[in-house]
Amino acid sequence: MKTILIVGIGAGSPEHLTVQAINALNRADVLFVPDKGASKADLADLRREIIARYVTNPASRTVGYRVPKRDAANPDYGAGVHDWHEALAGIFNGLLEDVPDNGAAAFLVWGDPGLYDSTIRIVEKLRGEYAVEIIPGITSIQALTAAHGIALNRIGKPVHITTGRRLGMVTDDTVVMLDGQTAFLTADPELDIFWGAYLGTPDEITIAGRLGAVRQQIVETRKMAREKHGWIMDTYLLRKRD
Amino acid sequence: MKTILIVGIGAGSPEHLTVQAINALNRADVLFVPDKGASKADLADLRREIIARYVTNPASRTVGYRVPKRDAANPDYGAGVHDWHEALAGIFNGLLEDVPDNGAAAFLVWGDPGLYDSTIRIVEKLRGEYAVEIIPGITSIQALTAAHGIALNRIGKPVHITTGRRLGMVTDDTVVMLDGQTAFLTADPELDIFWGAYLGTPDEITIAGRLGAVRQQIVETRKMAREKHGWIMDTYLLRKRD
Ligand SMILES: C[S@@+](CC[C@H](N)C(=O)[O-])C[C@H]1O[C@@H](n2cnc3c(N)ncnc32)[C@H](O)[C@@H]1O
Ligand SMILES: C[S@@+](CC[C@H](N)C(=O)[O-])C[C@H]1O[C@@H](n2cnc3c(N)ncnc32)[C@H](O)[C@@H]1O
Repeated sequence: MKTILIVGIGAGSPEHLTVQAINALNRADVLFVPDKGASKADLADLRREIIARYVTNPASRTVGYRVPKRDAANPDYGAGVHDWHEALAGIFNGLLEDVPDNGAAAFLVWGDPGLYDSTIRIVEKLRGEYAVEIIPGITSIQALTAAHGIALNRIGKPVHITTGRRLGMVTDDTVVMLDGQTAFLTADPELDIFWGAYLGTPDEITIAGRLGAVRQQIVETRKMAREKHGWIMDTYLLRKRD
Repeated sequence: MKTILIVGIGAGSPEHLTVQAINALNRADVLFVPDKGASKADLADLRREIIARYVTNPASRTVGYRVPKRDAANPDYGAGVHDWHEALAGIFNGLLEDVPDNGAAAFLVWGDPGLYDSTIRIVEKLRGEYAVEIIPGITSIQALTAAHGIALNRIGKPVHITTGRRLGMVTDDTVVMLDGQTAFLTADPELDIFWGAYLGTPDEITIAGRLGAVRQQIVETRKMAREKHGWIMDTYLLRKRD
């Protein structure tokens, strides 16, 4: 049986790697590195830097693969994701054929493999029998709160994690991820926002304050940074004032 | 100015340590290790094992301190926590006097310092000026989902994180922490539960299934494990079936 290691590599800094992740990468015969196109070349570079720094197993090799684009034009979001997962499962099946019998392959996954990432679900769809191990990684949420020097929750209070697409009325402290449409502009201006982009990287940017006071600055910072880098990853926490 | 490093050490395995955490521990002149009493000696042992394994700075020393008990009998939960934080701030002030000028002190914090932990808030109350750095760590939530081989969220869906005390109607996928009172017994038996105790440690236990079918097994496993170890830390995810 072959082993698939789904390895969380943290959310931007090579220093986010855990000892468990480093050991897992060194157990792998093959390391699979996604290539999401030229605009996100920085992210592929970070993965290669991680391998260069931490992988000491001379027998392992790195294999890049092209990630197909999800059909964002599909009006049925669920169906679009389903088709995209099927396409990726086909690619993974091909990649895994080259893994030696009783060997191990590692997928390097951004942040934690359990948080808004498809790898676990795609691996479930694969043909054949594999032993699967998941190695947790530092998430962008943790990078966000650490950068702002704050706790995620208030004492004994709940926390909500959602996407820009689903951000509605903010009742509990809420983390928003995958927000392409600056959903914070629709939220109560009396909330506090703790915003961060490129967290953990040398390009990290953070802005915090009353939403009404800083939202325009965030919109402009976001726009300029995206133009400069060709891509942006940002996330934020919305919190009611006490 | 002195530096305070609030270092997340992961939720049970010494291999949860990140490279950033290891580097931070090695920058510290003094490492502060809480002692929560005999019943939780295993946890203090894990902290000491982490120091023995990863701290190579010969100049650093480890200082234990007794953690006072929060007055759980105080009917005002907020006031009880407030008093407890004040007592801890007094202890931290004393500890930090022994840190050399321009030196650094590290607090080893379970899991991630941002998730249901008081250290960040207590450090905010300290007398004097400190530079504070927060180093994220793997949380028990990540250890839970990795152990069960599942993602935390379903595709594009939100996640709620709360405490046993506050668990109400489960509308979104919900992680419950700090549950001393087996609050899951009050939840809809048609939910799926993914439960884990002592996650990341050699004593890790996991149980998953329809809540109505496995809740009794969890209650009994919990009771037996607590008797055996003298303490228990458990957490779980409640998920609606699709
Ligand atoms: C597909 S999800 C992957 C999340 C990842 N698995 C994690 O654990 O953080 C991508 C989203 O994560 C957030 N994100 C990831 N890395 C980030 C970073 N370094 N800075 C800011 N946001 C980030 C953004 O909200 C982005 O839209
Ligand atoms: C005071 S909170 C600290 C949480 C920690 N900062 C973290 O990031 O996981 C303690 C609660 O975390 C959960 N927990 C922490 N470590 C755990 C472990 N190894 N296994 C199961 N639950 C754990 C339990 O719900 C416990 O009541």
